[in-house]
Amino acid sequence: MASLPTGPEIEKLVQLLAKLPGLGPRSARRAALVLLKKREALLEPLGQAMREAAAAIRVCATCGNLDTTSPCVVCRDPRRDLHVLCVVEDVADLWALERANVFRGRYHVLGGALSALDGVTPEKLNVAPLAARVANGIEEVILAMNATVEGQTTAHYLMDILAASKVKVTRLAHGVPVGGELDYLDEGTLAAAIRSRTPF
Amino acid sequence: MASLPTGPEIEKLVQLLAKLPGLGPRSARRAALVLLKKREALLEPLGQAMREAAAAIRVCATCGNLDTTSPCVVCRDPRRDLHVLCVVEDVADLWALERANVFRGRYHVLGGALSALDGVTPEKLNVAPLAARVANGIEEVILAMNATVEGQTTAHYLMDILAASKVKVTRLAHGVPVGGELDYLDEGTLAAAIRSRTPF
Repeated sequence: MASLPTGPEIEKLVQLLAKLPGLGPRSARRAALVLLKKREALLEPLGQAMREAAAAIRVCATCGNLDTTSPCVVCRDPRRDLHVLCVVEDVADLWALERANVFRGRYHVLGGALSALDGVTPEKLNVAPLAARVANGIEEVILAMNATVEGQTTAHYLMDILAASKVKVTRLAHGVPVGGELDYLDEGTLAAAIRSRTPF
Repeated sequence: MASLPTGPEIEKLVQLLAKLPGLGPRSARRAALVLLKKREALLEPLGQAMREAAAAIRVCATCGNLDTTSPCVVCRDPRRDLHVLCVVEDVADLWALERANVFRGRYHVLGGALSALDGVTPEKLNVAPLAARVANGIEEVILAMNATVEGQTTAHYLMDILAASKVKVTRLAHGVPVGGELDYLDEGTLAAAIRSRTPF
């Protein structure tokens, strides 16, 4: 990136903004200019919020969620079903499922998916504590991995580990996404939707 | 946006990130998670950079560029041609032209474009100081407004104002963008490219 016609503090800001997902060099410059123009309304509050978030953040010792308390707000909630555990790859997946507002059990965040290519072995994931949790009164484990090669490899690996514990293990349904058009879906999804068809 | 399964400091961070251009609610959540996971490598440095930029930022009193000094790095540069002035709508346009590295004069940032719809009148733009600068030894003014209705309205308005001063007024060429394919260009651009055709 060529040097900007501006001072080093502003250039530093642009460079760091460009490291955020979804912002390339061009949109980082645009974001920086908006921040600089809205110094009191946006730049200073955002800097403050980052400082406060950095000081407050905790990883939930039970499930791995990112929160400002440990245990996190989900693990603390007495209304959640203690007997169902939903295993996800990432905190973002936990947040996504909570938005759907359909699962009332608790979570277990692996912190990634197995990947030989990226050198992610089971030891690097939050796998060992999962077995301990499952042994402690869990009746069903939902494997909610991504429908990717890494995600499904991870699901099969966990299935093998959990087989010994005799817990009920389920996984997310495959099928046509709500609002999806058949013409735009891949063959794998269509095949799964046909195989898992339900009575009308 | 539904409440996230996390603490108020983190939720605040997501809400403020979502105000950046190019980041919607979904990508703001993703950016916040990346920041929280890279606390020492990204979250803390970015918070620090925002604090420093907020303290250091100055609007150049000569041209309107955003810098940490006034006059800015462009206006301070003794190698720049003092007789040519390029008028732009916004600081982002100044930065874009500097990246092209082809203009060696100085700039004048209007701070927007005339718009009856948005209530942007000449008084709200940096127009009055432009006449004073032009009277002070400027030989050519390049009107580098955007090729939008507002930009071109602004250019015509400035043309009228500058007509009295007998300075040479030019504007950017219209034509096929470098790398552009004719099939994807609008009729206005193609017509301009034909009208302004040059000897091969």
